[in-house]
Amino acid sequence: MAKKVLKFGGTSVGTTERIQLVAKIIKKERSSGNKIIAVVSAMSGKTNELIGLSEKISDDFNRRELDVLLSSGEQVTCALLSGALTKLDIKAKSWLNWQIPIITEGDHANARIINMNIEKINNYLDEEGVAIIPGFQGISKNGDITTIGRGGSDATAVAVAKIFNADSCEIYTDVDGVFSTDPNKIPVAKKIDKISYNEMLELSSLGAKVMQSSAVQTAMIYNVPLEVKSTFTDRKGTKIFSQENIDYTKSVTGVAYSKNDAKITIIGVEDRPGVAANIFEPLSKAQINVDMVIQNISSDQKTTDITFTIKRDDVIKTKKILKNNKKIEYQEIIQNEKVAKVSIVGAGMVSTPGVTYRMFRALSDEKINILAISTSEIKLSVIIDEVNTLKAIKKLHTIFELD
Amino acid sequence: MAKKVLKFGGTSVGTTERIQLVAKIIKKERSSGNKIIAVVSAMSGKTNELIGLSEKISDDFNRRELDVLLSSGEQVTCALLSGALTKLDIKAKSWLNWQIPIITEGDHANARIINMNIEKINNYLDEEGVAIIPGFQGISKNGDITTIGRGGSDATAVAVAKIFNADSCEIYTDVDGVFSTDPNKIPVAKKIDKISYNEMLELSSLGAKVMQSSAVQTAMIYNVPLEVKSTFTDRKGTKIFSQENIDYTKSVTGVAYSKNDAKITIIGVEDRPGVAANIFEPLSKAQINVDMVIQNISSDQKTTDITFTIKRDDVIKTKKILKNNKKIEYQEIIQNEKVAKVSIVGAGMVSTPGVTYRMFRALSDEKINILAISTSEIKLSVIIDEVNTLKAIKKLHTIFELD
Repeated sequence: MAKKVLKFGGTSVGTTERIQLVAKIIKKERSSGNKIIAVVSAMSGKTNELIGLSEKISDDFNRRELDVLLSSGEQVTCALLSGALTKLDIKAKSWLNWQIPIITEGDHANARIINMNIEKINNYLDEEGVAIIPGFQGISKNGDITTIGRGGSDATAVAVAKIFNADSCEIYTDVDGVFSTDPNKIPVAKKIDKISYNEMLELSSLGAKVMQSSAVQTAMIYNVPLEVKSTFTDRKGTKIFSQENIDYTKSVTGVAYSKNDAKITIIGVEDRPGVAANIFEPLSKAQINVDMVIQNISSDQKTTDITFTIKRDDVIKTKKILKNNKKIEYQEIIQNEKVAKVSIVGAGMVSTPGVTYRMFRALSDEKINILAISTSEIKLSVIIDEVNTLKAIKKLHTIFELD
Repeated sequence: MAKKVLKFGGTSVGTTERIQLVAKIIKKERSSGNKIIAVVSAMSGKTNELIGLSEKISDDFNRRELDVLLSSGEQVTCALLSGALTKLDIKAKSWLNWQIPIITEGDHANARIINMNIEKINNYLDEEGVAIIPGFQGISKNGDITTIGRGGSDATAVAVAKIFNADSCEIYTDVDGVFSTDPNKIPVAKKIDKISYNEMLELSSLGAKVMQSSAVQTAMIYNVPLEVKSTFTDRKGTKIFSQENIDYTKSVTGVAYSKNDAKITIIGVEDRPGVAANIFEPLSKAQINVDMVIQNISSDQKTTDITFTIKRDDVIKTKKILKNNKKIEYQEIIQNEKVAKVSIVGAGMVSTPGVTYRMFRALSDEKINILAISTSEIKLSVIIDEVNTLKAIKKLHTIFELD
């Protein structure tokens, strides 16, 4: 008998039929004798619908009230799932953010869960009841409803698993698990059975969006074992835990890519201490997410060229900020809006020589020009022309024996 | 400067545009220096949509969870209205059932408000804030969400007005006020400026459904002055207060009618004590609402005929219950499913002789046969063939000088 946190995302509870399917999954887990806490998202489309209503009223809607508004979405799912379980003769009860309570700190729309009262729910689990908790929300110390920013319902599930000391945290979603690359693009993509938190982080932030990165981070910090699996099939999912528990037979675990990237190069920036900070501080303040940064020495050794990548939507805003930046001097800004980032990810890379070389050779064989390179312990990323993305992924997937 | 409770029904908050209109009404009241507590319903259609979801899952949906589900509707309106007020630079804040809290007792879906904490909201009103409260809901003593049955958001508004000792309670709706009869059927129907609680009760339960009867009853008990008015026009509404504050110049205040009635007559029932109780107890238990009851002495003086009216939808169920009722004996059940009840209502009736006679004479002049009669202090109702309804209302409206 285990204590399990099961989290069901928006598509998993998107219709009443799907909520009834989720109730059956929970019934099966209960029938195996497990203690179950279910964390649920709003029905798919619901949160956007509510945001749409708020935007009709104001493009700068009161943040406290936006959280009151949005939190109603998960409340609806909690009630419907609880009703569906009762219908299947499973004892169940919804516990809203204030009924537990889930205590958060931080700003509206960007709060973090810091504590929960576990006694009442633990008693209820002992009485064989299923506790249903809304994801994505809590209350502040002064009793306002707050929604948690990054991570959403995944972060709630991880926090619940940690605070209730659960044996596992299972993230039910609309895909079978984490894949070696995007299965919609590369049919030979394979589901990964086991992956480390670190690899998962690299893969999810790069496009394999099966789980929110910040929730994976929290799980890593508190060593909460995760499993990502499909609501709609019985197949085994992907288990995510710490690196030391995984035997690596392959150097590369997966090939990730990100779309909608743009590359900006500032030519002839004065080469002195503090110049990078002067460039990137105003971008950060404007919420522009700068991804890769590469700096080359320039030929005259007094100036340098700085290249970085951003989301394509941010190009105009970024150029405006650079042009208005009085603290930097440069010759020219050039941009390339049609680039993609392709990365190989694997905790086994560090102990396998030649991975870098094999990647560059493979791309060269395909006549793909590398525009920029960035490396980390478990990841090797290149920026290439967007048009070459699919060809690059296919080649890398094959040469690193992932097909 | 007055303390006002303003209640806005589902059609008044049915779209974001309408919510912005409501915000303007509140802004105007605030600009006059009034302290405002707004009580809001769910956006029109929302509650039915949520009930529809629950019915897809179960035709006997868990009652606790149904209240969790339905209460989300008013939560959404509270947040949107508060955001709309902020947008107009009016200080405002939503207060959910548990944040106040609104304490109820009684069953789920049928609870009654018994208390509220007034201190925090009164402080907020003193700080010139508008408090926005969800109608139709509260929490039980053990912390479950409850919805209040009869009266809904109107009942919340009256309870808030009473508990906060407000100077007035204004019910904003989609009609201009209470009319002397249905303005959709009789174009000469006139808006009534002042009406007593009792008359309002007789009119609203008979078809002029501008306000929930049980809320009017509560207002009467605690002498909370009401005003029913339109959200969509600037016209004066109808003021509702106790009878002693009204000068009656007319004997009849309005002509009401109810549709979808059916008449059942049980012929030859044994005439002994307890027989009526034996007939109506099982109907009451089956939630069948029996309206008028008339008993005639039968010719043989051992048996009697009992006639009563019910809603047309309940005919089949009623006949089944009567037939299965082992405690009564009778010769025959006859039914007439195409009847209507037409009533004249007026607190001035009791002091005006001849009202009864004038009504019967007027119907006789129109060759309308009276199938049953029922009287009270301020009301005189007749059952007639449904086909004659409009003719009867017109005639009565004219002869009692309401045109």
